[in-house]
Amino acid sequence: MNPVELIRKKRNGGTLSQDELHAFITEYVRGRIPDYQMSAFLMAVYFNGMTMEERATFTDVMLRSGDVVDLSMIPGVKVDKHSTGGVGDKVSLILAPMVAACGVPVPMISGRGLGHTGGTLDKLESIPGFRTNLTIDEYKRVIAETGLVLIGQTDDIAPADKRMYSLRDVTATVESIPLIAGSIMSKKLAEGIDALVLDVKTGNGAFMQKYDDSVALADALVSIGNAMGKETVGFITDMNQPLGFMIGNWLEVVESIECLQGKYVRDLMDVTYVLGGAMLWLGKKAVSIDEGIEQCKSAIASGKAMDKFCELTERQGGDVSYLTNPSRYPSAENGIGVLSEKSGYVAGYSTMEIGLLAIELGAGRLKVDDVIDPKAGIIITKKIGDEVKAGELLATIFTDKSGVVQLASDRLKALIQIADRRVEPPPLVVSYVDAHGVRPWRM
Amino acid sequence: MNPVELIRKKRNGGTLSQDELHAFITEYVRGRIPDYQMSAFLMAVYFNGMTMEERATFTDVMLRSGDVVDLSMIPGVKVDKHSTGGVGDKVSLILAPMVAACGVPVPMISGRGLGHTGGTLDKLESIPGFRTNLTIDEYKRVIAETGLVLIGQTDDIAPADKRMYSLRDVTATVESIPLIAGSIMSKKLAEGIDALVLDVKTGNGAFMQKYDDSVALADALVSIGNAMGKETVGFITDMNQPLGFMIGNWLEVVESIECLQGKYVRDLMDVTYVLGGAMLWLGKKAVSIDEGIEQCKSAIASGKAMDKFCELTERQGGDVSYLTNPSRYPSAENGIGVLSEKSGYVAGYSTMEIGLLAIELGAGRLKVDDVIDPKAGIIITKKIGDEVKAGELLATIFTDKSGVVQLASDRLKALIQIADRRVEPPPLVVSYVDAHGVRPWRM
Repeated sequence: MNPVELIRKKRNGGTLSQDELHAFITEYVRGRIPDYQMSAFLMAVYFNGMTMEERATFTDVMLRSGDVVDLSMIPGVKVDKHSTGGVGDKVSLILAPMVAACGVPVPMISGRGLGHTGGTLDKLESIPGFRTNLTIDEYKRVIAETGLVLIGQTDDIAPADKRMYSLRDVTATVESIPLIAGSIMSKKLAEGIDALVLDVKTGNGAFMQKYDDSVALADALVSIGNAMGKETVGFITDMNQPLGFMIGNWLEVVESIECLQGKYVRDLMDVTYVLGGAMLWLGKKAVSIDEGIEQCKSAIASGKAMDKFCELTERQGGDVSYLTNPSRYPSAENGIGVLSEKSGYVAGYSTMEIGLLAIELGAGRLKVDDVIDPKAGIIITKKIGDEVKAGELLATIFTDKSGVVQLASDRLKALIQIADRRVEPPPLVVSYVDAHGVRPWRM
Repeated sequence: MNPVELIRKKRNGGTLSQDELHAFITEYVRGRIPDYQMSAFLMAVYFNGMTMEERATFTDVMLRSGDVVDLSMIPGVKVDKHSTGGVGDKVSLILAPMVAACGVPVPMISGRGLGHTGGTLDKLESIPGFRTNLTIDEYKRVIAETGLVLIGQTDDIAPADKRMYSLRDVTATVESIPLIAGSIMSKKLAEGIDALVLDVKTGNGAFMQKYDDSVALADALVSIGNAMGKETVGFITDMNQPLGFMIGNWLEVVESIECLQGKYVRDLMDVTYVLGGAMLWLGKKAVSIDEGIEQCKSAIASGKAMDKFCELTERQGGDVSYLTNPSRYPSAENGIGVLSEKSGYVAGYSTMEIGLLAIELGAGRLKVDDVIDPKAGIIITKKIGDEVKAGELLATIFTDKSGVVQLASDRLKALIQIADRRVEPPPLVVSYVDAHGVRPWRM
C-alpha cells in the first residue's frame, strides 16, 4: 500500500477498495502514516466525498480500531438515540429513562459540549456525584441491572476516530458528510446496540443549518447504520430556537425532571415522544411508532420514567435528593431578567449565538481545560409565535461572572427577534428518514 | 492569524490576502504551522486554485524565504531559461554558452533528474571534475568573468519551496498549476535574473501531457514572472519523442558538444535556436526573436558557443579534454542494439517510459541516494516520420548492468511504434506565450 497513491486516487475522484481504506486508516492509527498524509487525504475526501461502500468501510475500520462492546447477554433489542446537537437539547435525559421504563434497554455513550451545543455528559455531571466515567465492565453491569446506562466515550472506543477527529478539527476538514457520519456511527456502533434512532437537527442552532445538508447527513447516517446490520431510522427536527425553555447544564436537568414528572413542554416533549416511539418500535415493544409514542406517554404519566431516572442516577453514584428536591441545588450568584422593549410576537431566535452566550456565562468550555459552572445558563420564557408585551420578561441569565452581566443581557436581547405580527412557529419534526429515503413527517 | 481559518477560507473557494498568505507560509517555514495543516492547505489549493494575486504573493514569499542573489553589479540584462523537463532535453548545455557567447549574461540554477526526466546538473557532473555546488560568491564571480554560470540550488535558495516540495511529494499535491508555478518561479527569480524564457513541454514525455494543461502552466509562469517585474515569455514545445537522439548524462553531453560544433540535430537545434533568439531579444542584444536566432546560428558557426562551453567547463573545474576528445570517456560495459522487426515508419515513442527505462539502466536515481552511472543511456536512430527497414537499428542501449540487458531491449522495442504508412511528425514549437496570452508559433 502506497499512501501517496491512495491520496491521489481519492483526489482524482476514484473509489478506494475496502482493503485500501482499511490499510490506510489502520496504518495511520499505528503511527505508520503521518498526520500530514492523513490531513491531505481528509481534505481530498472533503472535496470528492465517499461512496456508500467507502463510508461503511470507513466506519467499520474506525469502529474496529477499538473495543466493540458485546451486549448479547442482555436480553431484548438494545436501542440508542443520537442527536447531532443543538441548544437546550436535553432530550436524552428524558428519553433514555422513558424508553428503558417501557422495557427497551438503552445503552448510551454520550459526548461533551461541542461548539455552541451542550453535551449530555456535562448535564449529567451537574447532578452531584453522578459518575459518567464507568469502565466497560461497569457499563455492562449497569445496563444489565437497570436496563439503562449513560456514560462517556472511553479511550478504548473508536480510538481511530478520536485521533482523526482531533486532526480534522485543526485542518478545516470537519464539515464533510462522510467524515461526520463515520465519526458518529463508529462511536455509536461500538456501544453494543442493535438499532439506532437519529435526531438530525436543522436550522440556525444546528451544525447543519440548511435543510438539504441535514437530509444528506441523515441519509448518510441511516445508510451506514443499515449497511452495518443495525436497523437505523432518523428524524430531521427543528433547531431554529432553543428546545424547551432552559439552557445550561443543571437548568436542563431541572427542566428534564419537570418533564419526567409530567410537565408538557410542547416542543421538547413532542420530539422526545417521537424519538421514543421509534425506539420502542425498533426495540420490538410496539408495532408502530404511534403505538410506541402512547407507551412513552404512559411511562411518563405513571411516574415510571421518573423512577427509572432516579434509579439510574443512584446506580451511577448521583445524589437523588437533588432530583426530588431541585431547590436544594445552589443558585447562580447573578440572575438577571431581560425585558422586552416592545410589544409584539417572538419571531425568531439567533439560536447558535444564544448557545455561545450560555457558554460564555459558564455553561460550557471556551478552552479544553475550562471548568464548567453547572448553575450557569439562560431561561427563555417564550417560543416563536408567542405574544410578548413591552416590559415583559423575555429571558433570565444565570451566571457567577458578575462582570459580564450587563453585556450578556444586552446581547441576549438582540438575539431574540420581536415582530409586529404573529409569526408561524417552524415545523418541529420535519422529516423521517429510513433505508427507503426521506419523507415528510406528519405531526 | 488562525491557520485553521485560512485553510477553511481556501477550502471554501475564498481568496487569501497578501498578509494572510505571507503569514501562513512564513509561520510554516518557522515551524509554527505543522506539516498536517500545510498539507490540508495544499490539497485545498489543488482543488480551488489561486488567483493571480495569490500566485504572485505565494511565489514572492517563497522567494524571500531565502537568499535572493543580487547580480546588479553585472552589466547587461541577465536572462535565463527554464524547461519543465523532458526526455533527452539537453538544451541548456547548448543554449547557455550559445547565448552567453552572444553577449547576454546567463545565470542558471538548475535541478537534478526528477521522475522520468534528466537534470542539467547530473549531465554537467558527468564531465570529470565539473563542480555544480558553487557558493553564491563563486557563482557571482564565475558569471562576472565568463558571462555564464551553471550551478545547483543551494540550501539558501527558496528554502520554503524546498520544504513544501518535499511535503507535496508525499501528499499527492504536486500536480497543481499554482503550486508548480510558484515552486519554479521562486527558484528562478532568486538567481538574480532580469528576464526569463520558458520552455514548457507538452506531450507523452512531459509532466503536462495535455496541451491545455501545458498552456495553463505556461500562462501561470509567464504571469507570475511579469507580475514580479521580470520580463517573461514562454514557448510550448513538443515532448512526444525524445529531444535529439541521445538520452543519458554523458551521452547528452556528447550530443550537445556535437551541436555546439555545428552538427544540426534538427528538433534539438530548432528548439535551442528559438529559445536562444528569445533570450537575446529579452537581453536587448537583438531587436526581434528572429534576429536573435540568426546571431545564435552565427555563434555556433563561428565556434564561439563551443569556446564558451569549454571556458565555463574549465572555470567550474571540469576537464575540457573530454569535451574536445569525447572518445577518451569510458564506455558502458554493454552496448546492445535494438533492431526493428518490421519495415515501415516510426509512428511514435512512449517517451515517458523511455525516460524511466534510461533511469533503470543507471542514468538516473530510483531512490534518493542512488549513484548515477553517467555512461548509461539510450541512443535512438530515428525520429517520428522516419522510414525504417526490418532488421535496421532502432536504438542502442548502454549500461553496466548486465542482468537487465535483454529485458530492457525487449521493453525498448515495445516503446517505439512502427506503422505501415508515414506519420507526420508533431509540430515542434507549438505556441508562444507572453503577457498578452498564447498564440501559435510559426516555424
